[in-house]
This record gives sequence, C-alpha cells and structure tokens, in this order.
Amino acid sequence: MVLRRSTVTLRMLLVALLAGAWLVSPVHTQSPGPAAWLDAYRDVATSLIEASTSDDFAWNRLAELTDTYGHRLSGSANLEQAIAWAVEQMTSDGLEHVRAEPVMVPRWVRGDEHAEFVSPPRQALTILGLGGSVGTPPEGVEGDVVVVNSFAELRARAADVAGKIVLFNAPFTNYGDSVVYRTDGAYVASQHGAVAALVRSIGPPGLRTPHTGSVGYEPGAPPIPAAAVATEDADRIARLLARGAPVRVRLTMGARMEADTASANVVGEIRGRERPEEIVLLGGHLDSWDVGAGASDDAVGCIVTWEAARLMVSLGIRPRRTVRIVLWTNEENGLRGATEYAARHAAHAANHVLAIESDSGVFAPAGIGFSGGVAARSLVRDIGTLLAPLGIGEIGGGGGGADIAPIARAGGVPMLAYLGNPDRYFAIHHTPADTVDRITPDEVSKAAAALAVIAYVTAEMPERLPR
Amino acid sequence: MVLRRSTVTLRMLLVALLAGAWLVSPVHTQSPGPAAWLDAYRDVATSLIEASTSDDFAWNRLAELTDTYGHRLSGSANLEQAIAWAVEQMTSDGLEHVRAEPVMVPRWVRGDEHAEFVSPPRQALTILGLGGSVGTPPEGVEGDVVVVNSFAELRARAADVAGKIVLFNAPFTNYGDSVVYRTDGAYVASQHGAVAALVRSIGPPGLRTPHTGSVGYEPGAPPIPAAAVATEDADRIARLLARGAPVRVRLTMGARMEADTASANVVGEIRGRERPEEIVLLGGHLDSWDVGAGASDDAVGCIVTWEAARLMVSLGIRPRRTVRIVLWTNEENGLRGATEYAARHAAHAANHVLAIESDSGVFAPAGIGFSGGVAARSLVRDIGTLLAPLGIGEIGGGGGGADIAPIARAGGVPMLAYLGNPDRYFAIHHTPADTVDRITPDEVSKAAAALAVIAYVTAEMPERLPR
Repeated sequence: MVLRRSTVTLRMLLVALLAGAWLVSPVHTQSPGPAAWLDAYRDVATSLIEASTSDDFAWNRLAELTDTYGHRLSGSANLEQAIAWAVEQMTSDGLEHVRAEPVMVPRWVRGDEHAEFVSPPRQALTILGLGGSVGTPPEGVEGDVVVVNSFAELRARAADVAGKIVLFNAPFTNYGDSVVYRTDGAYVASQHGAVAALVRSIGPPGLRTPHTGSVGYEPGAPPIPAAAVATEDADRIARLLARGAPVRVRLTMGARMEADTASANVVGEIRGRERPEEIVLLGGHLDSWDVGAGASDDAVGCIVTWEAARLMVSLGIRPRRTVRIVLWTNEENGLRGATEYAARHAAHAANHVLAIESDSGVFAPAGIGFSGGVAARSLVRDIGTLLAPLGIGEIGGGGGGADIAPIARAGGVPMLAYLGNPDRYFAIHHTPADTVDRITPDEVSKAAAALAVIAYVTAEMPERLPR
Repeated sequence: MVLRRSTVTLRMLLVALLAGAWLVSPVHTQSPGPAAWLDAYRDVATSLIEASTSDDFAWNRLAELTDTYGHRLSGSANLEQAIAWAVEQMTSDGLEHVRAEPVMVPRWVRGDEHAEFVSPPRQALTILGLGGSVGTPPEGVEGDVVVVNSFAELRARAADVAGKIVLFNAPFTNYGDSVVYRTDGAYVASQHGAVAALVRSIGPPGLRTPHTGSVGYEPGAPPIPAAAVATEDADRIARLLARGAPVRVRLTMGARMEADTASANVVGEIRGRERPEEIVLLGGHLDSWDVGAGASDDAVGCIVTWEAARLMVSLGIRPRRTVRIVLWTNEENGLRGATEYAARHAAHAANHVLAIESDSGVFAPAGIGFSGGVAARSLVRDIGTLLAPLGIGEIGGGGGGADIAPIARAGGVPMLAYLGNPDRYFAIHHTPADTVDRITPDEVSKAAAALAVIAYVTAEMPERLPR
C-alpha cells in the first residue's frame, strides 16, 4: 500500500520543475531525510504537541460528554442535547461561525426485546437487536435454530431453513470480513424462508458481550427480525445442536422505524487568514448506537478533531486556510449528516483541501492512514514525521471515512484517518462496554495533537495540498 | 499459613511415639524427602491422573450441564431438572446408593428490574439486583445519589444520606475485603435513612459487567432495595458528582421472596470395602445465581468432585473407606443443603474423615488448601506431592468451604479445598460471563485428577486421617 519514497521523490521533483514551482512549492526541498520544507512548521507543531499533552482537558471533555449524555442514537433526545452542548462549548472555545446545520435523520426505536429458549428447558437467551431490524409480532416468532458458519453453508442447507431461525456463527476474523453476516445475514436467510436471524457478535469473545450494528434488507425477500448473541451463546447453541439436542428459540422484538426527526451537524471554524474559502475539514460523529456511551464510537473522534482546533485557538494560531470541524450526525444508521453536508456544500466541494476523519478510536498503538494522489501522499508523509514525538509511525494507506466520503467524492478531496488499535476498538465496538474509562487521557491528547499538527500544516502551507 | 516441615515432623514423631503407633501409622516414614509411606499409592495415583487427563470427558459433561440447564437458582425449574439429570448420570456412571436427599430451599425471585437516570438527562442505568434484595413499590424509588468509598465515609456524611440512594464505590481489592459492601451496604445505608443502595460490582472492571450476590438485612433498619452497578457506571456517577452535576436515579425492582420449595442434595457413593462407615466427602454446589451459567460457580466444582469418583469406578478402585459425592443445593442464598446434610447425618458426623469442597473454580494456576490438625496437615502435604505431575504446588492453608463447614464443625472433620486462580475467578464471579467456554478441558481434568488422588489415598490409607 505504501509507495517507495525514492520513486515518489523523483516524480515529484519532475512535476515541480515542469510546473515552474520550484521556488514556491514546498515540494522542492523534499528528500529522503527530514524534509526541510517542514522547518517553517516545526516550532508550532512542537507547541501544539506540548499544549495537547500537558493536561487532560480533552479527556475530561470526552468524559463530560459521555457521562452526561450517554449513548446518542439518531432521533434521541440525548443526541440533540449533546448537539446543543457542543455548539455552546465550541462557541465558548472561541471557534468561529459555530452553527448546527440541520439534518433530518431516521429514527429507529429498539423497543422491548427479549428471547428465550423453548428447548432445552425454557430459559432466557440474551439478545441485542441489530440496528434497523424490524420487530416481531407482539407474541414473537418461534423456530428451531439452524447454525451455519458461512453463507456457503447456508446455501448448502437451504432446504433446512424454511420456518427456522438461522444463527450465523462465523468466528470473528476482522471487522471487514466478518461484518457481512451482520449486514447481510437476515436478507440471505430470508431468501431461504427463515423467520428470524441471529448473528454471532461481530467481535472477539468478551464477557457475554453482544455487539449491535446495522442490518440491511433488500427487495425480494421479506425483512425478518435480526439480533446479535454473545459469542458464548453462539458457541453454546452450536454445542447443543452438535449433541443432538433440539434448540428452539422464541424471539420478541419491539423494534420499529418512526418518522424522520430533526438533527444537525455541528460545525465550527477557524477562518483562514488568507484563503478562507479553502477548507481543511476534520470531524467525528456525535451519534452512536443505543448501547454503551459511544465513547470510542465516536465521541472521541468528535473530541480529538474539535480539540485540534481548540488548541490552535488557544495558541493564537490562525492558519492561511480555514480549519473546519464537523461533528457529524447519523453516521451509524443513515449517513444523513454526511450526505446533507455534501449536498449543502456541493458548490464548494472542490475547495476542501483535505478531509480528516477520526472514527476508529484512539487506542494505542494508533496510526494514520491517507488516501490521495502520489504528490499529496508524499507531502502528508513528510508532515507525519512531525508526529514522531507522539510515537506515530509512517503514514500508510486507508485514509477513508464514511462521513467524509461524500464531500471527498464530490470534490476529489484527499482523505486522512486517525486509526486506533483495531483489536482494542473492535473488542468493545457497538457494545455496552464502549465507555470512556478504557480510553486513557494520553491516548486522547496524542490523537488531538497529531490531528492539530496535520490540520495546521495543511492549512498553512503556501500551496494547497495536491489532489 | 504454612508450618515449617521440620517442626511438623518432630511434633508428629512425638505424637506417634506416644501413641504407640509407630508400626502401624503412616506417620512413621515421613521425612523431608518423598514420603515412603506413599509408595503404596503411587501406581494408582498415576493411573487416576492418566485417566483423567487422557480425554475431555469431564469438560464435556460440564458443558452439557451448563449448556442444557443454564443458571440454576434455588427454587427454579432448571435447578430441579439439573438435579434429576445428575441423579440419572451418576447412576449410569456406576456410583452406588445414588439419591436426592430432600432439602427445602428459599425461593427468591428477581422479577423485572430497571433503573434510569432522572438527571443528567433521562437515560437508562443498567443494574443487577442483589440476591435476596427486597423490591421497590411498583412506581420505583427515586433519590439523589450520594457516593461513598467506605463505611467510614458514610458515617462521616450520615446527615446527607436520609432520603437518598447511597452508592458504595470502594474499589475492588480482594473478595474478602470488598464483599462487605455488597452484603452489609444496604443495611448500613438504611440505618442512616437511605431509600436504596447501589454497590460498585464486587470484582475488577470488566466489560460493563455487573456482579450480583447476596445482600443481608438486619433488624433495626428497614430493608431497602439493593443493586449492583458495573464499575464503569460507578465511576461515571462519581465523576458526574465531582463535576457538580446532580445525579438522581429511579430504581424499580420486582424482587421478592416466595414460599420455600423442594430441592435436594444429590448424593452418590463408592462404598468402602473395609470401613464403609468412614466417609471421605467431596462436593460442589449445583445451584447458582440467576445470571450466567454458573459454570465456575459452581457447576465445575460438582463435575470435578463427581469425576473423581467416576474415575475410581472406571478403574475398578474400591477404597477401604466410602467416598461420598454431594452436589449441594442452595449454597448461594441459604446454605440449606449444607445445614440439612449436617442435620440428617449428625449421628455420623464424626465418621467423616475428610471433607473436600471445590467452590473456587479451577482456573490455572490452581492450588489446594487444607484446614486441620498438625498431624493431618503433614500427611495431606505428603499426599500433595503425588500431584506434582499436575503442576500443583505445596498444599497450603485455607481448606474451608461453605457447604462442608456445618458437617465439619459437627464432626471435627479436617477440610480441604481446591482453589482456582482467584483473579480469573472473581473477574466473572456472579456475572453473566460465568460460562463454560472460559474454562479449559485441561483445567477440569487436572482438578478432577487431583481430587481423585487425594480422595483415593485418604479413603485407602490404613489409619484414618487424624482430626
């Protein structure tokens, strides 16, 4: 994924010479060693890192947000209260043009949900409905359970599935590979006549910890109720069936969609001193699933990107370009914040110089990913060398993000992502255990510092970052 | 806790000489090196260890028990079904005189329970009612929350407590020291006029994992509802109050006591070939709290003690004395199984040679504790050397157990306990995460082997173990 530096340098020198930009472009000084063009930014970078890591301000703000408002599902009062709080706090920080840009969001309501084994002896089975699932009739749905470990196995056993409850029991490998059972399992099971779908939680074994997240339905098969079970319960059901015991489950879920409701993206800026129309965009999403406190997913992404701007304000830094913070709404179940932002700012999409997202937590060891052209990648990797005091290694690939993708696509904007350790992140992802206490102040401060340095340099450098 | 071997040896030699038992007692050959008196038992010990560790029979039986019947609270249908299953299985194993000795047990019913923050913004607070708690009125009880870290702090703030909900937030140190807040907190808070008690879960931080367990009430203060909260929620409430935010909680619990119901201790034996009236007693408790599967607490204690006898039967071993397995009922909330056994067998209490309990799990690294007289301790420590292949170190102190204590007290019986690693045990103790999957087959086999060897030698040695 990472281009070799020598190749990049030769290409970039050629581009720069052809463009006659030798004397003004930061590219001209790039070399395999420390990039001399960065010298103009080193002192400020050091100040930002020192300011961020000298106290626990950002962690305390993260704790205040998650302690006070808890989880923040789209359409909930708590999300709207958190939005109002963020506008107020951002204003008091000295950010400019702070506003809530209206977004209509879907409102999924979990309702009461419970399940039980009818056989073996009647007893409760803990479930956690998947976000967006349809509910059951009031009396629930009941069926024998069929366990499959893959879609291929489901197809091979298609004749067994009608009228049954399918448990997708694929062991967790990584999120990208495993999440398809959560997103697509109910639809595929329904195609074969299943009455409900259970999904082994998309995450490693925890402490009987179910993971929620969105389920999708497609035309052509009726939507059926879908819920996660803890890995322990998935394994238990598989063992019972392997022993020849009949496993019959009744599932009762009050889940439903209600009418769209008003929400908002929170936006605040440091207006650029020379090129205010050019924007370095940073953000995380303020909404969360309705379990846990949405601390790593993604209050912390909001806090660390916001903190990047607050640090600049507190140090009296006003870069050449505008730094814009967006705390997105409705990332989890609709992406309405992202699409509304792209629509509202469509005319200015190409003015976005860089789009930064923090939606993978900040657990150590963290890294940074970038997606963009070769020239931009080389410059960003140079900037990354300023983050050495934070223990962040070379910037790699994978700079996308669900919330920045629409505006980046519209404007051809390079994207950068802060990437927390995935093992720690997915252990608590979409669970009741996504709480602030397992994130350290140091992790929050380092993420904020890293993003502040990147945002500062990309907003300050004379030439805008190439596409 | 451990006596020095040289001291023990001298004392024991003296005792043996004075008793004129030199020629018949196993004591006479004891020395700091391998005890020669054990030579007669080495081959059988090796056979028991090999048989136990050659397959996963015991783990599979543990999984079948916990997978099929789930948790097994006194008074529940699942406990009674598990008892019937155990009688059937034990009989088919070839144990003798297998029976269910009737015991009337209390029946506490959790009912529906939930809590919410009234302030900060209204949102759910996950609780897990303590076993034996009284319920609330149907509309719940509501109060501002007062956080204290100790009973001393509660007394110092006694004037603040009336009409409030007290949260005991002492960090977990070890079970013995910390559990007093769960057992006594509600009573002490009630003495000062509190309307309910919340207790930081008695265990280390988990994954938003609440720990239940018994709460006690005393005359002189009205019983008030009591529930556990996860460590994360306790910390959150403490942070909110430290920030000056009012924290107000409404607690609704349907907990209640119902009439005593019929249960039973499951008893099975290998009748002794020469001294059937002398009994080596082993057991764990079959009941559990109504969360998790009660796998470590204490299905595994039932399985490994029972397995010790099954291994002897399968190898055709009939020791001199009777080996009796008891799967106790109602350990968690009444100890009725233990007290009923002591009453029913009072006339034969002194015939119990050794009482063995496994109720601390079998997590590695495991150990063994013994409580008894000096002479017995020395012999038991000799026997412990036979367990070296299992990685079990020198037998130490701490051989008690809640279920064996009544009969041991009545008969002056030495006690021995199998002691799993306490850090792993208390991480899941009384939680939904007490499931079979975190216990390895190896841990179960080793515990069964160790107990089989100890039971065999103490049932076979010519002279009964001294008091």
